[in-house]
Amino acid sequence: MPSTMKALRKTHAAKGLAIETVPVPTIGPADVLVRVKATSICGTDLHIYGWDRWSQGRIKPPVTLGHEFCGVVERVGEEVTAVKPGDFVSAEMHVNCGHCHQCRLGEAHICQNLKIIGIDQDGAFAEFVKIPASNIWKLDAAIPEHYAAILDPLGNAVHTVLAGAIAGQTVLVTGCGPIGLMSIAVAKACGSSTVFATETNEHRRALAKPMGADLVLNPASEDAVAKILQATGGTGVDVLLEMSGNPTAIQQGFKALRAGGRASLLGIPTENVPLDLVQDVIFKGATVQGIYGRRMYSTWVQMTALLKAGRVNLEPLFGERMALDNFESAFAKLQTGLAGKILMFPDGMPK
Amino acid sequence: MPSTMKALRKTHAAKGLAIETVPVPTIGPADVLVRVKATSICGTDLHIYGWDRWSQGRIKPPVTLGHEFCGVVERVGEEVTAVKPGDFVSAEMHVNCGHCHQCRLGEAHICQNLKIIGIDQDGAFAEFVKIPASNIWKLDAAIPEHYAAILDPLGNAVHTVLAGAIAGQTVLVTGCGPIGLMSIAVAKACGSSTVFATETNEHRRALAKPMGADLVLNPASEDAVAKILQATGGTGVDVLLEMSGNPTAIQQGFKALRAGGRASLLGIPTENVPLDLVQDVIFKGATVQGIYGRRMYSTWVQMTALLKAGRVNLEPLFGERMALDNFESAFAKLQTGLAGKILMFPDGMPK
Amino acid sequence: MPSTMKALRKTHAAKGLAIETVPVPTIGPADVLVRVKATSICGTDLHIYGWDRWSQGRIKPPVTLGHEFCGVVERVGEEVTAVKPGDFVSAEMHVNCGHCHQCRLGEAHICQNLKIIGIDQDGAFAEFVKIPASNIWKLDAAIPEHYAAILDPLGNAVHTVLAGAIAGQTVLVTGCGPIGLMSIAVAKACGSSTVFATETNEHRRALAKPMGADLVLNPASEDAVAKILQATGGTGVDVLLEMSGNPTAIQQGFKALRAGGRASLLGIPTENVPLDLVQDVIFKGATVQGIYGRRMYSTWVQMTALLKAGRVNLEPLFGERMALDNFESAFAKLQTGLAGKILMFPDGMPK
Amino acid sequence: MPSTMKALRKTHAAKGLAIETVPVPTIGPADVLVRVKATSICGTDLHIYGWDRWSQGRIKPPVTLGHEFCGVVERVGEEVTAVKPGDFVSAEMHVNCGHCHQCRLGEAHICQNLKIIGIDQDGAFAEFVKIPASNIWKLDAAIPEHYAAILDPLGNAVHTVLAGAIAGQTVLVTGCGPIGLMSIAVAKACGSSTVFATETNEHRRALAKPMGADLVLNPASEDAVAKILQATGGTGVDVLLEMSGNPTAIQQGFKALRAGGRASLLGIPTENVPLDLVQDVIFKGATVQGIYGRRMYSTWVQMTALLKAGRVNLEPLFGERMALDNFESAFAKLQTGLAGKILMFPDGMPK
Repeated sequence: MPSTMKALRKTHAAKGLAIETVPVPTIGPADVLVRVKATSICGTDLHIYGWDRWSQGRIKPPVTLGHEFCGVVERVGEEVTAVKPGDFVSAEMHVNCGHCHQCRLGEAHICQNLKIIGIDQDGAFAEFVKIPASNIWKLDAAIPEHYAAILDPLGNAVHTVLAGAIAGQTVLVTGCGPIGLMSIAVAKACGSSTVFATETNEHRRALAKPMGADLVLNPASEDAVAKILQATGGTGVDVLLEMSGNPTAIQQGFKALRAGGRASLLGIPTENVPLDLVQDVIFKGATVQGIYGRRMYSTWVQMTALLKAGRVNLEPLFGERMALDNFESAFAKLQTGLAGKILMFPDGMPK
Repeated sequence: MPSTMKALRKTHAAKGLAIETVPVPTIGPADVLVRVKATSICGTDLHIYGWDRWSQGRIKPPVTLGHEFCGVVERVGEEVTAVKPGDFVSAEMHVNCGHCHQCRLGEAHICQNLKIIGIDQDGAFAEFVKIPASNIWKLDAAIPEHYAAILDPLGNAVHTVLAGAIAGQTVLVTGCGPIGLMSIAVAKACGSSTVFATETNEHRRALAKPMGADLVLNPASEDAVAKILQATGGTGVDVLLEMSGNPTAIQQGFKALRAGGRASLLGIPTENVPLDLVQDVIFKGATVQGIYGRRMYSTWVQMTALLKAGRVNLEPLFGERMALDNFESAFAKLQTGLAGKILMFPDGMPK
Repeated sequence: MPSTMKALRKTHAAKGLAIETVPVPTIGPADVLVRVKATSICGTDLHIYGWDRWSQGRIKPPVTLGHEFCGVVERVGEEVTAVKPGDFVSAEMHVNCGHCHQCRLGEAHICQNLKIIGIDQDGAFAEFVKIPASNIWKLDAAIPEHYAAILDPLGNAVHTVLAGAIAGQTVLVTGCGPIGLMSIAVAKACGSSTVFATETNEHRRALAKPMGADLVLNPASEDAVAKILQATGGTGVDVLLEMSGNPTAIQQGFKALRAGGRASLLGIPTENVPLDLVQDVIFKGATVQGIYGRRMYSTWVQMTALLKAGRVNLEPLFGERMALDNFESAFAKLQTGLAGKILMFPDGMPK
Repeated sequence: MPSTMKALRKTHAAKGLAIETVPVPTIGPADVLVRVKATSICGTDLHIYGWDRWSQGRIKPPVTLGHEFCGVVERVGEEVTAVKPGDFVSAEMHVNCGHCHQCRLGEAHICQNLKIIGIDQDGAFAEFVKIPASNIWKLDAAIPEHYAAILDPLGNAVHTVLAGAIAGQTVLVTGCGPIGLMSIAVAKACGSSTVFATETNEHRRALAKPMGADLVLNPASEDAVAKILQATGGTGVDVLLEMSGNPTAIQQGFKALRAGGRASLLGIPTENVPLDLVQDVIFKGATVQGIYGRRMYSTWVQMTALLKAGRVNLEPLFGERMALDNFESAFAKLQTGLAGKILMFPDGMPK
């Protein structure tokens, strides 16, 4: 067992990241040390790399990034009984306090004192990562490693899709980034009928059909709302899954939503969004849901069951695979918007 | 049985209303003719009186106004079995089509082809009104006439309050017009804990405590959000009942809502409302509901049960009572914002 | 247009049925006359044929049987706007009163005054059938005729499966008659993970895998409960869909249900069932639902959407097809338990 | 701080209990030591005293009984941050494992590995009790001590009443033991309309009206089902809260339940109960819920809010108050069925 390890870190309050050698984390009695097998890069990691306004307010360097990963348990604290060395695991990286109002209500995913591993404390872009035992998710061997590395965003998708009725529902997914694309696959696996998808980026739009969308529209070049209304006999869709954070997409999504429909919002706009509350929410009797993180841990239970049953095909999502050392290339690729989910391997490339 | 009757009507596409003598409505086989005992004036009637932009687009004169009323069945069509002459009744004035997607789903209150009696066809500001049998609501004799005359707005309040969990919940009612005030009483009757109310109009604010509010705030002169957060230990309220339609009140309401809370919106803003979707909805995991009309007819069942059980005291709401002939005085009074619900009697004043 | 037609009827209070020539039904202003294209036989029809105790108490001969069918609109009453001659349709054969407590609550499927077409009044085992316009269900041309003929039992299955969460859930279907088998297909289409099925009849058991079951058990020859508990890590299934009406199957189903699970009961036992309420319901915190008919009409909306999306394969269910004249052969076959759904054609066999 | 304390214990596998002097519990890093101020006796304690079959299978003497209590924090383990010495507290005495399927789903109250303090390990009939910090419930000073001592059974009542819609619902409570009586008060506080109560014991029946019941029936001497059906216009009640565990009461409760109603079962029958599943559950489309314990911790949040708001009056429930030393007298009194909740004070009687 080494005492130091390689880690991809924000070392200074400035653009960029760096590989450093740091001590392997020491664990407390209720912690688990995981040897990281594969990690994946989230859009949030791109923001932190770029050192945008949000990052400047939230990140306290130095900190190891990375909150999408899977690995093998290396060591457990003395109080830990749920997993043992050698277990194949991922983890919920949102750590809740356990005693605020929301935690007491079973809404730990919106805990008032939430900390995120890989944002607020050292994460998984490293050879080892320390995780509280309560947050470890033991994986069925039937789940492949590359799927196991992206359970965090898949959980976002499952949380959003299953936040209301989905079987037999028409669905509009606005925004075909990775979580939007996963939402398409999850919605189809859960019995949704027609799934519409909108996306302006050509590369992402091309992935929507392979992921299961029935009709894919480019709102930059066609009247997506009119086409969706026409395809639904003028009624609109039962469910809007908003994955873009783009104000125009949000407004269009609401216009395409049927009276009595559900709008589940996961995408993060960077500014206030003027909403036509009267026509789009009130007179429609619509339900709008903010979606954050994954329900702890019912989303994980659902996601695992869907994966074990082989109902969700995520293969079209995956792009290149690289050693962690080549992170600059991975981040550069993602910034072009032409990559799928890129996997990075702290150990070097798997043979 | 007379062949003509007195009716308060929009006679021309211009400001104002007029009393006219018109034929008593003839009824079809599935209709009910009701002799109107008491009516009440809705804010919508004020808009139509004033001939605002919305009225100009919607109202086709001549038409008899009035959609809040109670009365006694005078005559029934040959297919009607649910009520008989002499029955004490009110009615749901939203008439649904029965075959659109929403009607088929049991969401008749958001029917795609909704018509409103008293807006789109002749209403209850008259000695008689014609109502489809399906829309008649037979009243228990235990419900007093003045309550029976305002079931339409009370139903809005009940629909809003009971659109989610309410027992043991902290509640903020933004806007203390009649429906906001009724919501306070309904929420308390259904087990809500602390009820906060905000209102800038002094007359209305003075009614909030008698209706059951625990803490009444004037957002024009104090930091209502800060006070609500303080009173809830920094957590915010479980439920926001938005009754004002005022953009600032809506924004403040969302700031005072706890993560995981419910915002039920009934008030009608006259413009787009810029919402901080990220902080107020998405990161909060909040649920936002548009509320329109009354559920047909589960809201009526709930409302009747609450009234029969004596659990909702509406007395502080009532202002003056007048003969229908004095409508100008009633409308003038309401425009000052200093009146409660004004009852008008087509028959002349009850002895 | 003929004035008489062929109909398969219960003519006397005794065992058996007979083909008679009867007048084509006359329709009222809100009725629809449908030319029947295909019908299917329900287990209830077998009971009526056999003239069991239930039939003796309920059926008032003479009456035309048949409540599973599809056809083409022949004529509509003057008030009917939702369909027109030539439309391809099926119908909800449960006719609700519209004014009882349950109807007012949107629970028309458990109306206090329910009448069933084909049981309480003349049904669809005939060349023509009269249906109230409110009960007609207009079909998408994409739905094949043989599927359209069995929407009534498919609706039972959809109602049962979607009475609670199903995506990512483990499911046990007890009893693989037609509705049980359909439930397997519907559950899989809606994202259930492992589906277990139990059935003692070999012919039916053989259909469970083709319909989508993952593990099919014969409780007459193996310890089904133990195997299900083992396969779920000792936890039990999330959802029990009870389709047998068999007391032993019901008891075993509850033993295989996890704490916090859902048991949806559709099968009709012929006697009281002793339940271990403490261990199987109370300490388990289980939810038990009685399921009757189809929700009017949200079940029809869901079912249509699932079929249109091509998500439910019912082909393995279908057995022989016969002219209505050969009804004796069809009923005889069904009594052996070796047949799937048998279609009968009033018009004679389709070419 | 003393090193020993007085405790009321099951010392041997036989009838009876005894006061013993035992060491004050030592606490671990995540535990809280509470100085007990008041305790109350549960029906379960009577069973253990009497050493019935259930007790013989479950209790491993020696063990200190007592799971209804309140007290003041005396000492906290080093990891405990949620409470501090001097805080007024009660506790959830069901201790969940945190990692079974149900715990992961947020259904900790039906944890597969549940342990109960006061049953499976030393409880609160003592001067001090050790509680895991996660199970401590900090109390608002507004809650009086005698209410705080009975939050465990009040939580059962709140859990049962709020397991479905209650506002505007008609309710039948079968069985007026302490939890049944509390359920009446909670249901009324949460907006139920007519509350019916049935009970054969005269003393308990006499308390039902003071607790808020509208109509109290003695099923031993009158046809309670017929009277309830008559009072509800033949429809039956919306909600059955079964608190007796008596098979006849359960059967009658189901007969009095409306089609589409909810039956929430908390009472524990001692044998299998033959249910008419067809008429009482399936054809009714009823929902039956098993209720166990209290939801952790949303029931505690709801209960606290209802109490703080002063909406639930429990005063009629309370009977005598005694020093713990007089336990024989308390248990004897309870066995007669003529006592309310008896409070016992480990410290001796409060001045």
